[in-house]
Amino acid sequence: MGGPGDKQSEFDAAIALTGDGPVFGAVLDGRWNGHEGAHGGLLLSLATRAIGEVLAFPDPLVVSGLYLRPGSPGPVEVRTEVIRAGRTTAFGQASLCRDGKEVLRATAAYTDLTAAAARDGRFYAGIHPPDLPPPEQCQVLQRAANPPISFAMRIESRVTELPGWVTRTPPSGNPVYEGWMRFADGREPDLLSLPLFVDAVAPAALELDLRRMTTVELTVHLRARPAPGWLAYRTLTRYLADGYFEEDAELWDSAGRLVAQSRQLALVLR
Amino acid sequence: MGGPGDKQSEFDAAIALTGDGPVFGAVLDGRWNGHEGAHGGLLLSLATRAIGEVLAFPDPLVVSGLYLRPGSPGPVEVRTEVIRAGRTTAFGQASLCRDGKEVLRATAAYTDLTAAAARDGRFYAGIHPPDLPPPEQCQVLQRAANPPISFAMRIESRVTELPGWVTRTPPSGNPVYEGWMRFADGREPDLLSLPLFVDAVAPAALELDLRRMTTVELTVHLRARPAPGWLAYRTLTRYLADGYFEEDAELWDSAGRLVAQSRQLALVLR
Repeated sequence: MGGPGDKQSEFDAAIALTGDGPVFGAVLDGRWNGHEGAHGGLLLSLATRAIGEVLAFPDPLVVSGLYLRPGSPGPVEVRTEVIRAGRTTAFGQASLCRDGKEVLRATAAYTDLTAAAARDGRFYAGIHPPDLPPPEQCQVLQRAANPPISFAMRIESRVTELPGWVTRTPPSGNPVYEGWMRFADGREPDLLSLPLFVDAVAPAALELDLRRMTTVELTVHLRARPAPGWLAYRTLTRYLADGYFEEDAELWDSAGRLVAQSRQLALVLR
Repeated sequence: MGGPGDKQSEFDAAIALTGDGPVFGAVLDGRWNGHEGAHGGLLLSLATRAIGEVLAFPDPLVVSGLYLRPGSPGPVEVRTEVIRAGRTTAFGQASLCRDGKEVLRATAAYTDLTAAAARDGRFYAGIHPPDLPPPEQCQVLQRAANPPISFAMRIESRVTELPGWVTRTPPSGNPVYEGWMRFADGREPDLLSLPLFVDAVAPAALELDLRRMTTVELTVHLRARPAPGWLAYRTLTRYLADGYFEEDAELWDSAGRLVAQSRQLALVLR
């Protein structure tokens, strides 16, 4: 995470751990808040990092989180468990507790993605990166106007068309957002940052005129180590019914590879 | 699960629990084997059922499982934990252990889907049930020719076109399967059966000429209690790279509602 002379990035500071495990300490920093307490994707990146500390493989492969309560800024205890240390895959779990109350329960698998790629080179893509002009030709998606959502200041986002919640025009009815993202402070994306990024886009369900929602569960597949540069994203909702909706996200790196695929189940709030 | 005079269905027998919890007993029945030991979807249904036993809500809403080892037929211990009992959602966990070794780690959220539907009636569908002729006009997909895969005898499947692995023609290159499914013994589908059903279709990645694969993680969203009758399914793979692929499934009930949406990450085996 940078050489001795480097200033630590905002993200690395936010997922920093203390202690030797299996119980770690961390601090939820108010600069990474979503609508209600700590941003859900940031919490999942923090849990993924903690699980990686107790497993012998370098690369997170898949992580699932159950969102139990909002996490207010302040110290958290991160309890980890090695579920299974296999030969090609290791499995672990983390619980994030704030004031003794569990905020997030996450389970993850880690592997060595380089070794996996060497074992099987077959490729198929039924999905493709969004067809976007270069970031320099896109508009800046400014979310700073909404002060409690401080995490949006940590991430730069560019889009071809500003959404209705910015231009104050009615929702389109088409729940798909595409654009570019990167850390505002210039830190390059890595696997640990992808749980954050998949959840860092505004929910496409805003285009269905939903206003408030909360994540119940979020699963992220981590498919490749991202190349430096912007991430292209596509996020969409396929089904809303009976007070719940699913939201999928894809992240593509600057080399055009799919680096993360995620799906969450969210509850519509009144 | 049926009145006193009813014969227990094959599925209810397969997910039967003994004991009062939080640790339950169950038996992996060799009649529900996949390629390597107990069928993964069946294991997830069993874990979901066990979690439901210790939570105060009627309906499983989302369940995620990490597949740690194959589960050979025989007795298993199912350890459950209440993670959080909230007002509208409760969260729990289950570990399935065979001979002291953990086979599956699952986490789930339960709720009351009827109450959720009453709270918010908005609806959007960007996906639709597959356009299939009635089951009576479809072909029976016979999987009994492959003896170790005994679970396929427990489930009836109908398709419009037999896949290449049945007709011994080359894979199509298009990893999508659609068709109908139901229990062979006439048991009606319910929420607990959906983790089984989402994983009961042959992997669409067979159409990419993959032969052997194993599930690393499977997450299922349970969206509505299925109406009696056939389930229509669509299963597809969107991305295969570096030895891993994702597979999504949708299940639609006889009333045309989406009842389950799932995604798994699978490892290609040589």
